[in-house]
Amino acid sequence: MSVRPETPLLDKVPTPKELRALPKSKLRQVADELRSEVISAASISGGHFGAGLGVVELTVALHYVFNTPDDRLIWDVGHQAYPHKILTGRRAGIRTIRQGDGLAPFTKRTESEYDPFGAGHSSTSISAALGMAVANKLSGKKGRSIAVIGDGAMSAGMAYEAMNNAKQAGNRLVVILNDNDMSIAPAVGGLSAYLAKIISSETFLSLRGFGKKIVELLPRPLAERARLWEESARGLAIGGGTLFDELGFYYVGPIDGHNMDHLLPVLENVRDTEEGPILVHVVTEKGRGHPFDTPNQEKYHAVPQFDLITKEQKKSKPVAPTYTNVFAESLIAEAEKNDKIIAITAAMPSGTGLDKFEKRFPDRTFDVGIAEQHAVTFAAGLAAEGYIPFTAIYSTFLQRAYDQIVHDVAVQSLPVRFAIDRAGLVGADGPTHAGSFDITYLASLPNMVVMAAADEAELKHMVATAVSITDRPSAVRYPRGEGVGVEMPVKGEILPIGKGRIVKKGKSVAIVSLGSRLAEALKAAEELETKGLSTTVADARFAKPVDEQMLKDLAASHDLLITIEEGSIGGFGAHVMDYLAGEGILDGSLKVRALKLPDVFQDHDKPEKMYEEAGLNASGIVAAVLKALGRNDLGQSVTTRTL
Amino acid sequence: MSVRPETPLLDKVPTPKELRALPKSKLRQVADELRSEVISAASISGGHFGAGLGVVELTVALHYVFNTPDDRLIWDVGHQAYPHKILTGRRAGIRTIRQGDGLAPFTKRTESEYDPFGAGHSSTSISAALGMAVANKLSGKKGRSIAVIGDGAMSAGMAYEAMNNAKQAGNRLVVILNDNDMSIAPAVGGLSAYLAKIISSETFLSLRGFGKKIVELLPRPLAERARLWEESARGLAIGGGTLFDELGFYYVGPIDGHNMDHLLPVLENVRDTEEGPILVHVVTEKGRGHPFDTPNQEKYHAVPQFDLITKEQKKSKPVAPTYTNVFAESLIAEAEKNDKIIAITAAMPSGTGLDKFEKRFPDRTFDVGIAEQHAVTFAAGLAAEGYIPFTAIYSTFLQRAYDQIVHDVAVQSLPVRFAIDRAGLVGADGPTHAGSFDITYLASLPNMVVMAAADEAELKHMVATAVSITDRPSAVRYPRGEGVGVEMPVKGEILPIGKGRIVKKGKSVAIVSLGSRLAEALKAAEELETKGLSTTVADARFAKPVDEQMLKDLAASHDLLITIEEGSIGGFGAHVMDYLAGEGILDGSLKVRALKLPDVFQDHDKPEKMYEEAGLNASGIVAAVLKALGRNDLGQSVTTRTL
Repeated sequence: MSVRPETPLLDKVPTPKELRALPKSKLRQVADELRSEVISAASISGGHFGAGLGVVELTVALHYVFNTPDDRLIWDVGHQAYPHKILTGRRAGIRTIRQGDGLAPFTKRTESEYDPFGAGHSSTSISAALGMAVANKLSGKKGRSIAVIGDGAMSAGMAYEAMNNAKQAGNRLVVILNDNDMSIAPAVGGLSAYLAKIISSETFLSLRGFGKKIVELLPRPLAERARLWEESARGLAIGGGTLFDELGFYYVGPIDGHNMDHLLPVLENVRDTEEGPILVHVVTEKGRGHPFDTPNQEKYHAVPQFDLITKEQKKSKPVAPTYTNVFAESLIAEAEKNDKIIAITAAMPSGTGLDKFEKRFPDRTFDVGIAEQHAVTFAAGLAAEGYIPFTAIYSTFLQRAYDQIVHDVAVQSLPVRFAIDRAGLVGADGPTHAGSFDITYLASLPNMVVMAAADEAELKHMVATAVSITDRPSAVRYPRGEGVGVEMPVKGEILPIGKGRIVKKGKSVAIVSLGSRLAEALKAAEELETKGLSTTVADARFAKPVDEQMLKDLAASHDLLITIEEGSIGGFGAHVMDYLAGEGILDGSLKVRALKLPDVFQDHDKPEKMYEEAGLNASGIVAAVLKALGRNDLGQSVTTRTL
Repeated sequence: MSVRPETPLLDKVPTPKELRALPKSKLRQVADELRSEVISAASISGGHFGAGLGVVELTVALHYVFNTPDDRLIWDVGHQAYPHKILTGRRAGIRTIRQGDGLAPFTKRTESEYDPFGAGHSSTSISAALGMAVANKLSGKKGRSIAVIGDGAMSAGMAYEAMNNAKQAGNRLVVILNDNDMSIAPAVGGLSAYLAKIISSETFLSLRGFGKKIVELLPRPLAERARLWEESARGLAIGGGTLFDELGFYYVGPIDGHNMDHLLPVLENVRDTEEGPILVHVVTEKGRGHPFDTPNQEKYHAVPQFDLITKEQKKSKPVAPTYTNVFAESLIAEAEKNDKIIAITAAMPSGTGLDKFEKRFPDRTFDVGIAEQHAVTFAAGLAAEGYIPFTAIYSTFLQRAYDQIVHDVAVQSLPVRFAIDRAGLVGADGPTHAGSFDITYLASLPNMVVMAAADEAELKHMVATAVSITDRPSAVRYPRGEGVGVEMPVKGEILPIGKGRIVKKGKSVAIVSLGSRLAEALKAAEELETKGLSTTVADARFAKPVDEQMLKDLAASHDLLITIEEGSIGGFGAHVMDYLAGEGILDGSLKVRALKLPDVFQDHDKPEKMYEEAGLNASGIVAAVLKALGRNDLGQSVTTRTL
C-alpha cells in the first residue's frame, strides 16, 4: 500500500518563491518532508528515484539561494529531478510521472519554466548552461546558469568539451558536480566542509584574483613557477580538483551535499562572487533515505512501483525472457566457444545484460563509462587486431558514436558488432530514449550489415551470425522488454546474410516485417484473411542487405507489398522501395506502402498506446492494407491512425 | 618548377628496417633529407604538408626506436603522415598523393601494414591505440601502441574519453602529444629537455613506482596528502602536466620535437619502462622548414601545388565565388540586420568562412575547438534564450554531434541553424571527408527542416530563410568548392518552407534535383530533348519537408519521375518515394527512380571522375532516364554506370 506522508511545511511551499520566504532554519524540515514525498510518489509511479533522493538537500538549497527560473537550473540527464519537480509547481502531478499524459520522467521545457533545458541523455548540461550563460553575457543580464552534473556523467567527452570552453562564461556559469560515488563519500568530513566554506568565501576568491594579477606582472618563467606554486598549494589545501582548475574553473569542495549548513553558505558565496566559472564539488549518497534495508546503488537507480509498508515491488510476472537477457546468454554461449569475443558497455552493464557476461568473462568485458564514442573506436582497434568485439549500446545512446561508426568502423570495414538494445519505442522513458533512428543511420552506410530480431530465438541466431561476419561491421537491433515467448533454440545458428524468411504464405497481400512487429503482422494477416485477403507474412531479418530475390518474388505474386518496421523514415522501407523502383518493379500495378514510426517525437506512454498511435499494431496494419486496396470495410477492431 | 633534392642517405632507407640499421649519428641527416623530400613532393601534389614538416624528426625517431609495424604507430587525423609514408615503403608514390589511384591523403589500412588504423577525422587515435594495446594484453604480446595526437585534437571529448580509460592498457599504450601551438613553443629550452630526459629515465619511473607503493601503505588521509605532495612536487619540477596525471598517465615532457638528442633517449626510456600508460609531450613547429618566407600556420596547413624556385602557388583562377565565401557573406549581411545572430565553428574558422564573420562580429563568433558535440548543445542553449545560432560544421564532422542534434535540438525543436559545408563528394580528401549522409540522418528527424543549395544564389536565400525559421531547427547544405557562376541577388529572400521550384518545363520526364546537381540535371535535360524526350527540371530546395503538391503535379503529368541528390540512400529520394507510395501515386504506371551516391566509400579522385563513377553527372542522369524508359539509344557521350 501507499502512504501519503505528513508534510505540513512542504504543503506551504508550492514554488521556489514561497521557499525563499522561509528562514534558513526551516530548510532542513523542508528537505525531510520533500524526501518523504519523493519516496511516497516513487512507490506509486516507480522510476528513477535513487538519484532524486540523493539531491533533496541540494535541490532545496539551489532553489533557495538562486533566483530560479531567472537563474537557469539545468539538471543533467534529468532523472534526479523528481524533488525539483515537486518544488516547482508540479507536486500535484508527481504521482503521474512516467504515465501517459503524466509528468515526463526527465526535465522538459514544455512542462515548466523551471526546466530551461530538457534532458534524458547524460552530460549535456554544461554545454547548455554555457550557451545560456553566454546569452546572458551578450544581453548584459546578470543571471547565472547552473548545471548539476553527476560524477558518472563527467566521463563523457561532451562534458569535457564544455568545460574546456567554460572560461568564456565567467561568473555566469556554475557547475555543481554531484558526486555520489560511494568510494568518495567516506572522505568527506568536517574539515573538508570547513575548508570548502573558506575557499568559496569572497575573501578567498578575491585573494586568488589578486594573486592572478601579481602573476601576470612577473616575467614569464617566474610567472609560470608562481602560478604552479599557487595551484599546487591550493591542491594541497583543498584536497584535489586540479583537473578542473586546469580546464579553467575555480574549484570548490568537496562539501557534504546533505548538510544544509555546508551547502547554503558555499552556494551563497558562489552566487555573490565576481569570479568564475566555478565548479562546486558536492558529495551525496544516491538513494539516501530510501526504504529498503540493503541499499544497492545500481539496483535502485530505477525501480518499479512498490508497497511502502511491505516494501514488496510490484513487478509483473514475465511471460518470456527479456531480449536483454537473451542477448547476454547468447553472447556468453558464443564466447564459451570463441575466446576472441569481447564485450563492451558504456556504463550500462546491467541494462545491456553484460553484467552476466562480466561474471563469466571478467577479462573480456570492458565498461568504458559514459563514453560511447570511445567505446566504438576502442572496439574498432580490437577488431583491427582480430578480436571480435560486441559493443552493446542502446539505440538512442549509439547516436553519440555515429561519427565513430562511420569513420572508424564502416569506412575501414572493421568487423565491430553492435548489439542495439531498446531499438524502437520505449514506453515510459519517452522520446529522449526512443530508439527510432538506428536503421536509417546505419543502413545508409556502405559495408554495414543491419539485422533486426523478430523474436528472442531470432536474436540468438543473429548473435551467432554477427560472430561469423568477419569482413565488415554488423548490427543487431532488438526491442525493450520481454520476448514473445517462442521456444528457444539450443544453439544460435548462422543465418544466411541478406536473406529473409516467409513465415506465412498467401496470395494477395505481402507484409514484409523487419524485426519486432512480426507478431502484430501475423495477427493482422489473420484478420485480413477473415476479410478475404490472402496474406503473406515475411520476416526480412536484414535491413541491409535487403533480400532482393524475396522482394522480387513477393512483388511478382502479390497486389500489395507493405513493409513494417519500428523505426523512422529512411530505413528498411526506404531500402525496399529503392530496390523495387530501381529494378522497375514499381513501374507496373504493384502497390507498395511503408509503415514506420510517425514523424513526431512520441510522448511517453504505455507501449500498446504508442504502437496504436504509430499505426504499428495489428489494427494499424489492417487499416493500412485496406486503405491501400481502396476498401472501406474497416472493422470495429480497427482504429484509424490519427497522427 | 619542381626540384628533386639530393637525398643520398634517404635513398638507402626505403623502410624502417634499414633505418634501424643506421647509427644514431646519421638520423639527423635522414631527417634533413626527409624534410627536403616532403617539400619537393608537396610542390608537386599540394596537400597537408605543414603538419608533416613539423613531425619529420619525430617520425624518424619513432620508427627508429619502436619496432613498427609490430608496434602499432597511429597518426591522429593522418594529415601529418607524409614523412611517415615516405619512410614506410611508399616514397615512390608520394608525388601521387591526393590524385586518383595515388596515395591516400591520410593514413589508410589498405595502403600499408605500417598504417594499422586509418584516419581523417581528428582525435580517434588514443581510442584505437587503446583497443590495440588491450588486444596485445589479452594475447600476451609485448607490442606497444603509439598514438601521435596534436594539441588541437586534444580538445575533442573523444580524446578525453580515451585518456580516461587509458590506465587499463598499462605500459602497452604510449601517447605522443604533438604540441605545435606557437604560443607554447618558446617555453621549450635546454632545461626542459634535460628535465624531460631525467624524468623519463627508468630510474625516475622506478622511483615513482616505489613512491606509489609507500603511499599505498599509509593510512588514508596521510596517503592522500602524500600522493598530492608527490604530484604537486612533480608538477613544479616538470612544469605542468597534472591534467594528464589526473587521468592516469605518466606525463613526460615537454621536449623539443626537432632535437634528435632529446627525442631518442626519451623515447628509448619510454619503450623500455614497465610503467604506463605514458604521455610524452613533444613540442614542434608546424610547417618547419617550409620554403615560404612568411610562415603562416593556418594558411600553410594545406597548400596547393607550388613552384619550388619561384614559390608561386599553382592555384586555378576561380570562375565563381566559393560556397564557403557566399555563406560567410550572406550570414554577415543577415547579422548586420539582426544582432541575435551568433556564429559557431568547431576549430574551422577559415574552412567555414567564419573568420570573416569574426572580423566583423568578434563578440558573436565562437570557436569552440574540435568539439562538435559541445558546439551543437551550446547552440541549443543560445537558441533556448532567443538567440539565432548558426553552427557551421562540415557535413562529415557534423556526424560527431548527431546525438546532440537529435536529443538537444530536434526533440526540443530548438531553432539551431546548421550550415553544412562540404556536403557531398569532396574530391582529393577522399572517403573520410565526404559529406554523404547528412540528408539521411537529418531528414529522418522530426521537426527538422533540411535545405540544399543548388547554386550560390540559392545559398544566400537559404541563409535568410534559416534566420526566419524560429520554431524548429533547420539545416542548409552546400558543396565544396566554387559556385556555378550565377548572378548574385542583392539580398537573401526568405523562401517558402517546403516549396520547390520548376526550373525548366517539359512533358515526359521530370528530374527532381535536390541541391548541387541541378546544373548537371539541366545539361541532361538538354541532351534528353535532343533524343525527343521533353524534360522538366525541378529544384526541390527542401529535402524536408518535401514539396508534396509539386511532386503530385509532376507525377500526374509525366511518365518518369527521377530524383537526384548528392547524398546516400535514405535521404531525399526516399522521402519522395515514401510520399508518392503513401498517397497511392505509385500504384499506377508512373515510373520512379532515385539517383544518389553509390553504396561504397568512393576513393579520392578528381570530382568529375567521382561524379561519373557515381552516375551523378549529366551523362549518368541521361543513362538512367533512358534505361528507365527501356530505350537503348545511349549516345556516345553517355558512359554506362559501372558501380
